[in-house]
Amino acid sequence: MSEKNSITLEQNEVILGRGLRGTTVDSSSICHIEGDKGLLCYRGYSIEELAGKVNYEDVVHLLWYGELPSPTEREAFVTKMRASRMLPNEILALLKTIPTNANPMDAIRTSISMLGALEENTPPDSFNDEVNNERALKILANLPIIVAAFHRIRTDKPIPEIRHDLNEAAHFLYLLTGKVPNPNIISTLDLLYILQAEHSFNNSTFSSRVIISSKTDLYSAITAAIGSLKGPLHGGANQGIIPMLKDIGSVDNVAPWIHDKLAKKELIMGIGHPVYKTYDPRAMLLKNVLNEFSEELENDTWIKLSNAIQQIMLEEKNLYANIDFYSAPVYHSLGIPSDLFTPIFAIARTGGWIAHAFEQIKNKSIYRPKAKYVGAPSGKKVS
Amino acid sequence: MSEKNSITLEQNEVILGRGLRGTTVDSSSICHIEGDKGLLCYRGYSIEELAGKVNYEDVVHLLWYGELPSPTEREAFVTKMRASRMLPNEILALLKTIPTNANPMDAIRTSISMLGALEENTPPDSFNDEVNNERALKILANLPIIVAAFHRIRTDKPIPEIRHDLNEAAHFLYLLTGKVPNPNIISTLDLLYILQAEHSFNNSTFSSRVIISSKTDLYSAITAAIGSLKGPLHGGANQGIIPMLKDIGSVDNVAPWIHDKLAKKELIMGIGHPVYKTYDPRAMLLKNVLNEFSEELENDTWIKLSNAIQQIMLEEKNLYANIDFYSAPVYHSLGIPSDLFTPIFAIARTGGWIAHAFEQIKNKSIYRPKAKYVGAPSGKKVS
Repeated sequence: MSEKNSITLEQNEVILGRGLRGTTVDSSSICHIEGDKGLLCYRGYSIEELAGKVNYEDVVHLLWYGELPSPTEREAFVTKMRASRMLPNEILALLKTIPTNANPMDAIRTSISMLGALEENTPPDSFNDEVNNERALKILANLPIIVAAFHRIRTDKPIPEIRHDLNEAAHFLYLLTGKVPNPNIISTLDLLYILQAEHSFNNSTFSSRVIISSKTDLYSAITAAIGSLKGPLHGGANQGIIPMLKDIGSVDNVAPWIHDKLAKKELIMGIGHPVYKTYDPRAMLLKNVLNEFSEELENDTWIKLSNAIQQIMLEEKNLYANIDFYSAPVYHSLGIPSDLFTPIFAIARTGGWIAHAFEQIKNKSIYRPKAKYVGAPSGKKVS
Repeated sequence: MSEKNSITLEQNEVILGRGLRGTTVDSSSICHIEGDKGLLCYRGYSIEELAGKVNYEDVVHLLWYGELPSPTEREAFVTKMRASRMLPNEILALLKTIPTNANPMDAIRTSISMLGALEENTPPDSFNDEVNNERALKILANLPIIVAAFHRIRTDKPIPEIRHDLNEAAHFLYLLTGKVPNPNIISTLDLLYILQAEHSFNNSTFSSRVIISSKTDLYSAITAAIGSLKGPLHGGANQGIIPMLKDIGSVDNVAPWIHDKLAKKELIMGIGHPVYKTYDPRAMLLKNVLNEFSEELENDTWIKLSNAIQQIMLEEKNLYANIDFYSAPVYHSLGIPSDLFTPIFAIARTGGWIAHAFEQIKNKSIYRPKAKYVGAPSGKKVS
């Protein structure tokens, strides 16, 4: 542990990595990751097992309630979720006052907070399961509508009518583009939702847990998580991939471009992951689907570029691409602008954030750590 | 450590209290607390030393930049802070659409998030000192205006014109009530601001640090901290004091009321503190001021009630009142409704939240702890 990443403590004090790196802070039944094996499981199901067999809606049920839904449960859950779809007039008005060149993460952070404010006198400690389940569905069902509405408003296009016959992935694409895309595109976004739904105690999920531990409401926790995800050390990282691919420009330029970066000891965006010491299983799944899927796309340059970069990095540095690396080109190929990649990540991760908030609520202990004081000695006098 | 408050870990794993209770997670130069001595220092100055000698504005400068301002620095700092006072039309419009019976914490959480959204394309990683200093002043100067504006709107009163000749405490009371109060009242609120400005790694301050560690922007961090403070295990606790005092009703009823609660093993609100094992130094200072100050007030019942409760709890349980216990009756005596006590706490604590965000920015490490997985074994199959 380098000096920069550690703090020096007195005898009997525990030495922890800065940012609690590598420190186990709680137990959880939601997500199991074995970074050295490339294993990611949601409540016992590997993502490889879930991909293609179930939809995002099933995964949300699994994360929140511990089990995949039975057909009857699924029907009830999906019906309730779709019935929660709305765009309150107050949020529509709010979105219209946000500058068109604002960061969309600011727009959704504000809108989810507003969704809570519109619940008249939201009791902070409504740790009533029924109330929280309703709020959870409301947040999950509204966030994609808010993202799409903000994009339609800023591009001066009408917001399509909300529909109740489409699944989450299809409905979002329909709202965003004005038309229902083909089934392959829908199932690709559905897969992206599944793969990004949950990833244990990452920064935004930990934020959701820390905040709800004060017994505040679910809106406060998810608003905070959105703010965290915006950061370039976290969800914001996926916005850097397309500019990098544009800078490279062509498959022929991949090798010289990478060698130049490596010579300058610069980082290659989307390569390597702090948790996975082997391949990122999400990137692996996505890569396979993308290779098939690329024929569907009008422009597959981005996917070819990504594959070429991955190959060189693996051969020369034994480093694998992470999920950002493959999600960015697919979003781009679908015509989605870079600044919506993080909001889409937020839509997917809301499943995990809420699952962790639900689990934290049962823990009852408020997060309140200590700091070692290293400042001016006490006893200073006002001159 | 009871089973409920701990997690069982494998060999070589560190055992931490749930909620990181008692765990040192980082070093900090901002605040020093010795709970067994009743000591609270901001950057080396005890709160007893600061109280009455400096104003909240000086304390904010101390917390953010490490030193009390020189007269020249003070002039520049205060001028800049007052010049940042505004109520953007978009936020005024937003506040008007929030239901009048919404929790004011929801209103301010949404408004501070909106303040960020209005900064066109807020770069998430603008860890530029100049940009962050401007944002910090904007948040600090606007939060009280937002609280007052929401209250004026919900009580169907016009919002007074923003002024630049009043200090923070005076300006807030002027906006809230429509008139500049007498100097004793102003200096009491100023003292309350100072005493609530900072308290090390409490839940909301830790939230501010966790969130900004993803390199997101300052608005995201403060929005999150407001959401955390709302919780009844944290800032929301001060809203329970007045209902308790109303329930007791008269000084004569204090002893029987307390004995009844103690017999039922129920908690007495505002008594005891998880950090202070002796007196809460903030409550002590406030009590002294209140006793003098009560002659100024038209109705000092609440203060007499509080003093009587404190005396019994100290004699019979050796427990001291905490800051909530004395801040609530003074707010109430000033005619401030209970649901604004937490927003006022937020106004004061913004000083500390921002100081910690500034310190965290320099740390560079993102908060990303681990969880011990205790859920279903991997290998489950979709049936």
